[in-house]
Amino acid sequence: MNDRYLKALRREPVDCTPIWIMRQAGRYLPEYRASRERAGSFLSLCKTPELAAEVTLQPIMRFDLDAAIIFSDILTIPDAMGLGLSVKDGVGPRFERSLRTRGDIDRLPDVDVLEKLGYVMSAVRMVRRELSGKVPLIGFSGSPWTLATYMVEGGSSKEFRYVKSMMHDSPHTMLLLLDKITRVVVDYLKEQVRAGAQSLMLFDTWGGILSTTDYVEYSLESMSKIVSALKSDPETGVIPITLFTKGGASWLEAIADTGCDAIGLDWTIPLQSARQRVGHRVSLQGNMDPTVLYASEEKIRAEATRVLSDFGPGEGHVFNLGHGIHPGIDPAHVRVLVDTVHKASAR
Amino acid sequence: MNDRYLKALRREPVDCTPIWIMRQAGRYLPEYRASRERAGSFLSLCKTPELAAEVTLQPIMRFDLDAAIIFSDILTIPDAMGLGLSVKDGVGPRFERSLRTRGDIDRLPDVDVLEKLGYVMSAVRMVRRELSGKVPLIGFSGSPWTLATYMVEGGSSKEFRYVKSMMHDSPHTMLLLLDKITRVVVDYLKEQVRAGAQSLMLFDTWGGILSTTDYVEYSLESMSKIVSALKSDPETGVIPITLFTKGGASWLEAIADTGCDAIGLDWTIPLQSARQRVGHRVSLQGNMDPTVLYASEEKIRAEATRVLSDFGPGEGHVFNLGHGIHPGIDPAHVRVLVDTVHKASAR
Repeated sequence: MNDRYLKALRREPVDCTPIWIMRQAGRYLPEYRASRERAGSFLSLCKTPELAAEVTLQPIMRFDLDAAIIFSDILTIPDAMGLGLSVKDGVGPRFERSLRTRGDIDRLPDVDVLEKLGYVMSAVRMVRRELSGKVPLIGFSGSPWTLATYMVEGGSSKEFRYVKSMMHDSPHTMLLLLDKITRVVVDYLKEQVRAGAQSLMLFDTWGGILSTTDYVEYSLESMSKIVSALKSDPETGVIPITLFTKGGASWLEAIADTGCDAIGLDWTIPLQSARQRVGHRVSLQGNMDPTVLYASEEKIRAEATRVLSDFGPGEGHVFNLGHGIHPGIDPAHVRVLVDTVHKASAR
Repeated sequence: MNDRYLKALRREPVDCTPIWIMRQAGRYLPEYRASRERAGSFLSLCKTPELAAEVTLQPIMRFDLDAAIIFSDILTIPDAMGLGLSVKDGVGPRFERSLRTRGDIDRLPDVDVLEKLGYVMSAVRMVRRELSGKVPLIGFSGSPWTLATYMVEGGSSKEFRYVKSMMHDSPHTMLLLLDKITRVVVDYLKEQVRAGAQSLMLFDTWGGILSTTDYVEYSLESMSKIVSALKSDPETGVIPITLFTKGGASWLEAIADTGCDAIGLDWTIPLQSARQRVGHRVSLQGNMDPTVLYASEEKIRAEATRVLSDFGPGEGHVFNLGHGIHPGIDPAHVRVLVDTVHKASAR
């Protein structure tokens, strides 16, 4: 088994730097678009285990990637909580119901994740079987704060008016919502591990819109509870956890304090300075600008090499983009990136 | 004259912390909406000196703010370069022509700013006269990189595909464009000072989408050239300059190295740590989360006080939001903020 990725997360020696790519199972791949077409809708693709497993494996078959990540959506949890998710092409996610009052949150049902999100576990089991040890499989969830932003706003947002108003004016209501989500996320990740996930990641896409004090109280605190819950459970205690707050450059020390194993970095943070700040405590994942993949092969090689040397010699680096791959990227460029990372980092 | 703002920029003692608000002349004010209505369009409002002066002064008449900022748009320069700007409500700015090739950039005309952007200088002169020393007047421009993103993309963007492709694949073309813009920005700011601006600010709205190396080469370098050009000219050498890169938390030291007088901060950066990093060299402007103004008066007071104590005792703080004020804010909440900042910081 290729265990470079798991070794790098433990800061153990590897033969070369492992790489996987956020949203590696995605629209830039023609085979993904074909599966998406057959599924009929994005949500059917997520909710049909055979298809979710199929698209999860597509990038692994095509490229020499060092990890697979289960194909799913971060909004499966709010959907399971009864908010009525729909995802329209070009519009993004919308919920039929949004949460604006204490009453809305009190009425949120408890979620039996095996019953409501069993389709995710089925896909995880299928992928693990199909991979048969080729590369490790990553499970994931959105962070409670990030999920809360969608649940309160009712979909995507630019201004985050309603969720921030709730946070500022009704902090207890906000914390109640975050606690409810946190409990479901813990169950969800534990079940993903039981189904076969070998590493876990929390995507805190919208932590970076908060001030430092609000970030610590409303986003990091819930992620910290999740890390503690997983680390203290014998069944999940050894599973490495990566936390990724987009725009979280200011808070790396506090993120490392949660006890996570790795921090995902966007491309605005120099790897070298991140390593100086927290590299003795956690591994670092990242952080090439995804738009570099639009550039020439020569430029991709140069930039991948620059990112590797920004991290420098030694262990604890998982190569990735600083954000999900864009849909318009030429798959041939991804191959150049993967090969460059492996060759240029060979010990 | 109320010179708290200028004193704070020089890190001199003040009787209380000065405050102004990014986009303080804007849609949250009913009197602004009335002027905008009379102008017929957003661009007419910018291009009619009497109206631009009128809306510049509206927040000064209503609130006890410590600085005025000339009302204008950051895209007046690309418009003056012949790209054909239009701004539609709810759609944002669009250019008739976008720049995609070396030829496009070679064909960009030199701009005589007095001829093409004289309307801005007229507004500056009117405002200075009307203010008659009440508070200082800030002039501004978009940063060359930020202007280039709009000029290459042809408007707003989420992915910045074309401007980043130009940067990655044709760096010389990109640098040529940035140099052309930089020369115009220098002239533009010098003329604003001649017309009466007493402080200058560069808005680098999109510097934060770059990796560290790209930020330094493509955004900071042009801003640095502008600072040097203004500082070395006897007519503008004493005018304080504030640089604001949204999402620039990682790069404060490099920004301070330009020789600017102050750095604008968004709300993701703790003021205290920013002060430790660069506070002995520059003043700091910021950094309350703009959405706090949606909250209760009690919360606004608490958060304003928290921001003040995050900066701590001593000089060199200009209070502001970390980004422009949102259009839906109640003007009464702005009054609470301004009064709180002055009272809570009284020496």
